[in-house]
Amino acid sequence: MLEVLKRDGLARICRFDTPHGMLETPCLLPVINPRLTTIPPRTLKERLGFQALITNSYIIRNDPRLKERALSEGLHRLLDFDGVIMTDSGTFQSHMYGEVEVRNSDIVAFQRDVGADIGTVLDIFTEPDWGRERTAEAVRVTLQRTEEAVYLKGGMMLAGVVQGSVFPDLRTECARSLSALPVDVFPIGGVVPLMENYRFADLVEVIIASKMGLAPDRPVHLFGAGHPMLFSLAVLLGCDMFDSASYAKFARDGRMMFPEGTYHLKEMRGLDCECPACREHSIESLQALPEEEKAKALALHNLYVSQKEIERAKRALLEGTLWELVEQRCRAHPALLDALRAVGRHKDYLERFEPLSREGAFFYTGPESLDRPSAYRYERRYFERYRKPAQQMSVVFEDADKPYSRALSKEIGAISQVADAHFVVMSPFGPVPIDLDEVYPIAQSVFPRRADRDTRERVRELMERFSHAQEYGVSMLYEGEATMDMLSTLGEGESTFDLDLARIKAVADYQFGKGASDPLFEGRVELTKSKNTDKIRNVAVDGEHVVSMRAPDGFFTLRPAGARRLMSGLSFPRMRVVVDQDSAAFNREGKNVFCQFVKDCDPGLVPMDEAMVVSEKDELLAIGRVLLVREEMLAIRKGLAVKVREGIKL
Amino acid sequence: MLEVLKRDGLARICRFDTPHGMLETPCLLPVINPRLTTIPPRTLKERLGFQALITNSYIIRNDPRLKERALSEGLHRLLDFDGVIMTDSGTFQSHMYGEVEVRNSDIVAFQRDVGADIGTVLDIFTEPDWGRERTAEAVRVTLQRTEEAVYLKGGMMLAGVVQGSVFPDLRTECARSLSALPVDVFPIGGVVPLMENYRFADLVEVIIASKMGLAPDRPVHLFGAGHPMLFSLAVLLGCDMFDSASYAKFARDGRMMFPEGTYHLKEMRGLDCECPACREHSIESLQALPEEEKAKALALHNLYVSQKEIERAKRALLEGTLWELVEQRCRAHPALLDALRAVGRHKDYLERFEPLSREGAFFYTGPESLDRPSAYRYERRYFERYRKPAQQMSVVFEDADKPYSRALSKEIGAISQVADAHFVVMSPFGPVPIDLDEVYPIAQSVFPRRADRDTRERVRELMERFSHAQEYGVSMLYEGEATMDMLSTLGEGESTFDLDLARIKAVADYQFGKGASDPLFEGRVELTKSKNTDKIRNVAVDGEHVVSMRAPDGFFTLRPAGARRLMSGLSFPRMRVVVDQDSAAFNREGKNVFCQFVKDCDPGLVPMDEAMVVSEKDELLAIGRVLLVREEMLAIRKGLAVKVREGIKL
Repeated sequence: MLEVLKRDGLARICRFDTPHGMLETPCLLPVINPRLTTIPPRTLKERLGFQALITNSYIIRNDPRLKERALSEGLHRLLDFDGVIMTDSGTFQSHMYGEVEVRNSDIVAFQRDVGADIGTVLDIFTEPDWGRERTAEAVRVTLQRTEEAVYLKGGMMLAGVVQGSVFPDLRTECARSLSALPVDVFPIGGVVPLMENYRFADLVEVIIASKMGLAPDRPVHLFGAGHPMLFSLAVLLGCDMFDSASYAKFARDGRMMFPEGTYHLKEMRGLDCECPACREHSIESLQALPEEEKAKALALHNLYVSQKEIERAKRALLEGTLWELVEQRCRAHPALLDALRAVGRHKDYLERFEPLSREGAFFYTGPESLDRPSAYRYERRYFERYRKPAQQMSVVFEDADKPYSRALSKEIGAISQVADAHFVVMSPFGPVPIDLDEVYPIAQSVFPRRADRDTRERVRELMERFSHAQEYGVSMLYEGEATMDMLSTLGEGESTFDLDLARIKAVADYQFGKGASDPLFEGRVELTKSKNTDKIRNVAVDGEHVVSMRAPDGFFTLRPAGARRLMSGLSFPRMRVVVDQDSAAFNREGKNVFCQFVKDCDPGLVPMDEAMVVSEKDELLAIGRVLLVREEMLAIRKGLAVKVREGIKL
Repeated sequence: MLEVLKRDGLARICRFDTPHGMLETPCLLPVINPRLTTIPPRTLKERLGFQALITNSYIIRNDPRLKERALSEGLHRLLDFDGVIMTDSGTFQSHMYGEVEVRNSDIVAFQRDVGADIGTVLDIFTEPDWGRERTAEAVRVTLQRTEEAVYLKGGMMLAGVVQGSVFPDLRTECARSLSALPVDVFPIGGVVPLMENYRFADLVEVIIASKMGLAPDRPVHLFGAGHPMLFSLAVLLGCDMFDSASYAKFARDGRMMFPEGTYHLKEMRGLDCECPACREHSIESLQALPEEEKAKALALHNLYVSQKEIERAKRALLEGTLWELVEQRCRAHPALLDALRAVGRHKDYLERFEPLSREGAFFYTGPESLDRPSAYRYERRYFERYRKPAQQMSVVFEDADKPYSRALSKEIGAISQVADAHFVVMSPFGPVPIDLDEVYPIAQSVFPRRADRDTRERVRELMERFSHAQEYGVSMLYEGEATMDMLSTLGEGESTFDLDLARIKAVADYQFGKGASDPLFEGRVELTKSKNTDKIRNVAVDGEHVVSMRAPDGFFTLRPAGARRLMSGLSFPRMRVVVDQDSAAFNREGKNVFCQFVKDCDPGLVPMDEAMVVSEKDELLAIGRVLLVREEMLAIRKGLAVKVREGIKL
């Protein structure tokens, strides 16, 4: 059973319990060839810190001596490894050599009998050059064999493989069917040919199609992925486990892996690596090693670098900079840029898991950045949720050469306070009215000073969409810096526009849903502002503190009075997490909501959202911050669902 | 005196001799504060491998105790450092604190008297917010002081600083004036405020304007640059030396430097660094160190990472992948992306130093890649040098969605051999006729499979330029894959087109200049082809071997008979390097041409060009590969100018 410890979008750090201990994902399982060990398994654990490995049960079973020892001593003694051992079934051999001479039931039983922690079904490797019919049939057989394996697995955890080649619907369908079965790990299979041929965009499509169908409560394993240049991207897309023999294969071939690609040792003109395998060497001494020693040194290098890259991706996830890391890594090869662009085509899906805000600033690294779900979120919510204040006129400021600049927004904001007009700065995220200019990612974004062609084009498209969406008033367009003077002349009337009031309404609608500001702020509104920054801190209505505004992301933290107001205005189950009776009393005490007690949830809630914890009778029990989306809460029965800030005592 | 060991464009690895030994550039000189030493100088050399450091003569001179010791013992004993010591003069203090109380003559003499290897003029720090007049006056005074320092320097090497703030013409003019003086190092000064404010695009303009005026025979030092995220970019632009106190300042402030940016240790959620300072630590143990120890550990980390990043840039230079590295590094911050785009605006200047080809493939990392000088070179030479074979019709193939693909070119090539038409595939580099499709960077380029908006737009612009350039024949445009059938129908006539003949002519014109193929191939042409690849290997004319075609980059290697033919067809000094009498006999023996013997050179020769070595009477002495451009050969009086392949005996 999986427990999500931290997440950012689909990316997650999880705890996964197995018979031989806990695995923290994302993690890499080095492949151990039972007949040709480059690095001893014990070394992998003790020196490199690998908690799990994967080996091949088919090879062991086909070798009489190994087979006998495995059956009598067990796999862990055979390999001299006391961590987690996953086994593959022979499927990859069928891809390499055509047929394999083993039955699914036999190989599953064998894996169980030798004590594998996680065994794998003998799935059918769906080749990328197969047609749809043949692929669909292979998926059918794979599912059938998985059902068979479920009855045979005994105490072993079972890996049920997602197949379906490059047909997204077959992948999703296969994933859905697997999710309904009691399998424990979801490898995504049949992807090695895509990786070998640098078809990374296709790989992205395969991963996303699979994720769409997979239940979120079990780890997703990208079968055969072992190159550090892929890890951050795969982590971003929600892959939890990786395995690969590449570290050893590449090493025997004299190739060194880096997050920025593969280099042939004999072609390298320097060694700028500090990993334990390289640090004692110069490029000359490494090149001069005897073949056997060289292969071992390079295998160690490849593993160290892989291990560090997974740690790097985890750190980026925790610091809120995973998108920036992935976009940087995807410059290592043009095919990775293709992959990054493929990710951008799924922003609609990714947005469902996109947190309300994150710690790291939004760094623009290229046109692909504008396809991030955070940009899509803003655009979507702006057009769906934003209500223009009741002024007569919209003044749109757009500077085609410069992406959004916060300084400009501030300058215009100052004018708008005296002019009776609705000021909007056109940004690559969408129109930014000054009352929304402090929310994530608007105020937390950094763009180059000069807009590139894609950014200008995007701003133009958004401008068009904005113009069409205007229902009333006069739209005025200005371009270039000279217009600042023209704007100033507008500032001579007397304004009826209260920026603070507009801001709290705009933010509430953006954060809680269209119209949410009406019940939240109905009555006599009082604001407390920061003495240092003059920013809104607390909002009280009719003497009650309803929300606080957070400086880092510009959103509200909910207070009990605010929660009650939202509940009266937003129909059940909007903004609510519904828990069962067992949980209620604890939550009223201010204790967190755990997944297993969640009965239902607003499907519109996203990670980091503020929400009301309620009983099935819609009684307010607590307020807090949501960590998972609905489908995750209902599937994952372990770990935190809502971090409660305040319980509502009876 | 500088010696260029390796180069790629403006980037170079040099040997620079000083009184305390040889420096290999690019290199970083850590700043040692004589009153507050974070890492002892001896440690810098012995443990971290720094061969040089920089310290401040003004601070030493203002401290009576330090001053006395420096004068009596000398700087090297004072600092306990037997490597190269450079000193700054107090200029940076004037930037920090306003005026300094020292005269130029006094501080230069002091630096000389304490035994600095390289001392610095008391230049005027030109602030970015100064107007043009004030800046110009500061440049004037700086140059005056430099002239004064020249008379005082004695045995000390002198650093004469390029000032001029953000006025490119003032920078270039200052650089030109400095180049005429006997100074030994060219620091580019006044750039710290630009770096502190992430004005990296302005920094690029300053570096390039300075480089344009600086003689290439002395090292260029980017004053105050010490962040690893900047090194590869600065190396690309021809900076040889760096110095910075940032490693220590950042460390005291709890900040860790990485090529991908700066991180506050207290905000970091993991430690994925293998440098010697980090490798014993977890993030928790590092965060928990006492302040003093922490500052020391972080300072060491910052230096190790900086050192490795310079090694990384050197390796990329040697492997021909420096552009790819820089473009990847420039994703670390949007301001670096601005800087990269600023580089793209100077492709005309950069192309003069662009090698004919390089080992690494051309990897497209984003729209900025199309502004590399290698892309500009191809476009320029195509339109200037390519002559269409005498067919009636041009058939242009363009697929708007896909950037150039070699497979497509091959397919069309096959058709063109039977159809009597001139086939051109439109690529983001420019039109690619099939007879040019094996030259660098065309055949060595990798693009994403789908073209982005910028690439499509560029192809469209090139298409327009191509159409206008067509003097005769019918231009046909096809888009999309369906047209392959249409192309096939053209293939039913009988062709008069000899692809091999067209290829050798096209390549010769591209490589040696418009019309060069006429004298080279006049007569009876015989081709030898590779049995394996069917590619052209050798070309003989009238029984004499004139050129060989290289598989990796598609260009020719010149043979003596070819050289003689070129000489008869290309007027002096085209494609020639002219050497003096002292060198002639050696070159005839096949020995290399050294810079000090070069009298003149074709200004059109670029690095890696094939060239004829001739006497002043235009007698052919040798053939070989050019390593430097004309202005470098004439300025740098040390090291190789032409790697001779074959001498022409009398």
